[in-house]
Amino acid sequence: MGLSIVRFDTKHWGVLEGNEIAALDTRYPSHRELMDDYFDNPQTFKNQSAERIPLSTVRLLAPVTSDIQIFCQGLNYATHREEGGVKAEKGQNLIFTKPPSSICGPYDNIVRPKGCELLDYEIELALVLKQNLPADTDVTDNNLLDYVGGLTLTNDVSARDFMFGAPMMQWFKGKGQRTFCPTGPVLYLIDREEASLIDNLHLTLKLNDEVRQDATTDQLIFKPAETLTELASFADVNRGDMLLTGTPGGVILNATPRVGLAILLNFTDDGKRRAKLVKTQRAARYLQPGDSLVLELTSRDGSISLGSQANGVVDAA
Amino acid sequence: MGLSIVRFDTKHWGVLEGNEIAALDTRYPSHRELMDDYFDNPQTFKNQSAERIPLSTVRLLAPVTSDIQIFCQGLNYATHREEGGVKAEKGQNLIFTKPPSSICGPYDNIVRPKGCELLDYEIELALVLKQNLPADTDVTDNNLLDYVGGLTLTNDVSARDFMFGAPMMQWFKGKGQRTFCPTGPVLYLIDREEASLIDNLHLTLKLNDEVRQDATTDQLIFKPAETLTELASFADVNRGDMLLTGTPGGVILNATPRVGLAILLNFTDDGKRRAKLVKTQRAARYLQPGDSLVLELTSRDGSISLGSQANGVVDAA
Repeated sequence: MGLSIVRFDTKHWGVLEGNEIAALDTRYPSHRELMDDYFDNPQTFKNQSAERIPLSTVRLLAPVTSDIQIFCQGLNYATHREEGGVKAEKGQNLIFTKPPSSICGPYDNIVRPKGCELLDYEIELALVLKQNLPADTDVTDNNLLDYVGGLTLTNDVSARDFMFGAPMMQWFKGKGQRTFCPTGPVLYLIDREEASLIDNLHLTLKLNDEVRQDATTDQLIFKPAETLTELASFADVNRGDMLLTGTPGGVILNATPRVGLAILLNFTDDGKRRAKLVKTQRAARYLQPGDSLVLELTSRDGSISLGSQANGVVDAA
Repeated sequence: MGLSIVRFDTKHWGVLEGNEIAALDTRYPSHRELMDDYFDNPQTFKNQSAERIPLSTVRLLAPVTSDIQIFCQGLNYATHREEGGVKAEKGQNLIFTKPPSSICGPYDNIVRPKGCELLDYEIELALVLKQNLPADTDVTDNNLLDYVGGLTLTNDVSARDFMFGAPMMQWFKGKGQRTFCPTGPVLYLIDREEASLIDNLHLTLKLNDEVRQDATTDQLIFKPAETLTELASFADVNRGDMLLTGTPGGVILNATPRVGLAILLNFTDDGKRRAKLVKTQRAARYLQPGDSLVLELTSRDGSISLGSQANGVVDAA
């Protein structure tokens, strides 16, 4: 059985146990040192004295610190490929990054940037590395847990107009804004005997109490092992770094052929491309101030909860 | 007058003075601490005892460490926009990132990844921050040097087939491979009275002794101050981070209308898009094993040298 780690206030870490937190004595500077300590000597880790605090009395933060790389997969569920107007076949692994300053807490507001009209959500399972991935590592299902130490819930918040209205459609501005990566509340430190859990997680996202995304991680097209193998082949992936594994169908963006045409016919004119995209989306209701999102990550059988997020949406000041 | 910092072996820093290095006693863990020390107290910094070492006896490394974010501008010279088939007007600032593991030394080999057919160069001026940029900082020409502490020479090496053959044309795989960011040799710590130097630098790149890129930084479309202002508005830019300011015309890729069509007509089929792009580039001679690149960065009047790179090209093992 794994351990549910939470972070609260600055530099306080604890183990979530029902409605209480066992606050750890050691003030780990980041989740890296915490994972080192836990995986190197789990019994000593668990035996450290820990004051019990009611969960209701603290504000939970993201359970990873912001000094990491965030790698992301795109189009990694068939249901999302279809709604994105992309062929359902496997094709290539789409990999991009978000800056770590996009990380925010699991109950923080998502800030809609000035000028953004098409603010969208994307629930995702994120893997957190406990070991550096040496160059050219062949990650397999058998050695995956040599590298992956934790699981957490993330929302790859996306400004669709900034994404598809950007020059060459680079996504940095559309995916990389502050508060665009709510993370946590739980960093679930996975035990080796739980390897199959990674493929047996259930993701649900509700917008204003309506279920919009509902999927299980056995549907991932590019699996964690092959994705980490590909990443290690060309970039350094370090302990503490996160891999967001992509979102299932159910996002607000609905890429009809008309959307595809609006993008392709205006490829070299960013402003026009963005305006045309926005026009195709008039019927859709994108995230607005006052909206609330609730995201949940559990084991498929419901026996293990990996936490839930609740975020409001506000406009930039 | 600024100071030319070089790094050699691991954790050794020095000041380049002609054909000698004044090796600094302090073994700064990164260029951040070195910049802190220099800008907080330049006289003490310069007075530290420093053994003199002939330049010829050491191997120079990148003068920045690999624990930073690398922000990059695309299409930031009119001459490069034109050869890229993009309208010359200003439009939007194209911003993307490279992972820090792409950094390599100024004399290291550039490794052509397996399967890459269209390996290209892009000489760029990089700015190195000495202070965190607080959110929503209004960076102006007047306060630019409150944040920018150093200048260095970079090559934004690009696998054109990986870039334009990637799903949704995400550039991470095309721009983010190891050795795709040769950096240095000099980190030029700029003095406040030299602010105008940033707009008065001369970049030249030679491929096998033939000049291919030759431009001056007064041609930058989005200037450093406005670019940093935009970045600060949505992401954390931290001391030590680099901003690559884009490349001028003269790269190998020549985006004729035929190239644009090959991309647009095959937008949803990555493999076909890549194959069609490669076909349009048959007449061009891309970087191959055995090629040599020489890059130089000097002041426009030639009085200040900010270093030169020399890289070979090899195939991945």
